[in-house]
Amino acid sequence: MMVIGNEILSGRTRETNAHLVAQKMFARGCRLGEIAIVPDLRDKIVATLNRLRRDFDAVITSGGIGPTHDDITMPCVAEAFGVPLLEHAQTLNLMRQYYGKDELNEGRRRMARLPQGAQPIICAQSIAPGAHIGNVYVLAGVPNIFASQLETILPQFGGRPFIREEIEVRLPESRFAEALRTLQQRFGNVEIGSYPGRCGPNPCGKICLSSQDELALKKAKHAVIAMLQSLMD
Amino acid sequence: MMVIGNEILSGRTRETNAHLVAQKMFARGCRLGEIAIVPDLRDKIVATLNRLRRDFDAVITSGGIGPTHDDITMPCVAEAFGVPLLEHAQTLNLMRQYYGKDELNEGRRRMARLPQGAQPIICAQSIAPGAHIGNVYVLAGVPNIFASQLETILPQFGGRPFIREEIEVRLPESRFAEALRTLQQRFGNVEIGSYPGRCGPNPCGKICLSSQDELALKKAKHAVIAMLQSLMD
Repeated sequence: MMVIGNEILSGRTRETNAHLVAQKMFARGCRLGEIAIVPDLRDKIVATLNRLRRDFDAVITSGGIGPTHDDITMPCVAEAFGVPLLEHAQTLNLMRQYYGKDELNEGRRRMARLPQGAQPIICAQSIAPGAHIGNVYVLAGVPNIFASQLETILPQFGGRPFIREEIEVRLPESRFAEALRTLQQRFGNVEIGSYPGRCGPNPCGKICLSSQDELALKKAKHAVIAMLQSLMD
Repeated sequence: MMVIGNEILSGRTRETNAHLVAQKMFARGCRLGEIAIVPDLRDKIVATLNRLRRDFDAVITSGGIGPTHDDITMPCVAEAFGVPLLEHAQTLNLMRQYYGKDELNEGRRRMARLPQGAQPIICAQSIAPGAHIGNVYVLAGVPNIFASQLETILPQFGGRPFIREEIEVRLPESRFAEALRTLQQRFGNVEIGSYPGRCGPNPCGKICLSSQDELALKKAKHAVIAMLQSLMD
């Protein structure tokens, strides 16, 4: 996934769209391979998009498709694919109906431009569409519009859902690190992560297990609990 | 900046450390050029780190320096720099004093290993250090430890602070997009962003201006306000 926006990199805005994608993809059994957050700079967006679409099965982008000067994602996508940016006739028609002819100003017309060959991504929250071209899905940055466009494309992503189990741990990580390493080797198709924390002065972390295999997950969970128990006895 | 951790990409954990860096760097006048969030995969971490340290003046990493099997950042940094990972004598001594000899188990010893030539990054929140090597700063993922280690290194980052001003707008973006584009061209050293939103059925967004030049920022703000006023009259 690629998030485009100076407002994230300057700390003005806390990113939410990538977190939503991460949760939705996990639930649908798709692995999110990278999140790249980049500024509103043409060369950077084009290079990052070309890297991601080469390295991954699909790329979702967020941000930069509005009517203002800092919205440059659509021309960048067109450049990355080496195609022109064209007014999309069907979208323009929809906008004419929505706004009325007089209100279809230059800013709004800009939002009807898609890279040649792209399909519009329609949602209930905005008349301005996202775009689907090749393995790239170009969505809005505004969170409610992003979420709505994401729902439109989600059916195209699917595998065996991941399931997650968490175990609370009141031991410091270093006490169980070696035993947990052994368990990770034993349960190859269960991903085991350890996330330490503190409750006041005492360690209280989480061991997090996730897998697409429910039975393996259950076995691994029992093994981790037994291992922790043996350390506390 | 590079954030390492499957927990972010699976949607389990919402990222906070990069947001903190973004805010701190903005206030110190440094531009954050990219945030890359990557999984706990050796090849991916090494390749991403090498890309970022080549492309940017400095790289901060977050996560993966604890004692468990999913903590692989330090060996990856060593690999990226082509140096061995060695027990750091001074850190090991500090750990011996802190834990006592008997409690210095394998997991804890792992946290005393730094890439050859790296300096430890010490903070008040953890005996296990981060590492500084070349233009790379390797920090913990646990937010309170990350924040504390970040404070340790922040004095090494500094320029003329950025200042930000925001203007509330009750017009749809497309109404002022062209005028704002002209103003962005006029005020080259002020970054102008437009972030639309809704208050119920009505548009209410923000125009956000930031600059290292206080006077230019003030002038640009007045020009934007005058432009908006002229559109509403």
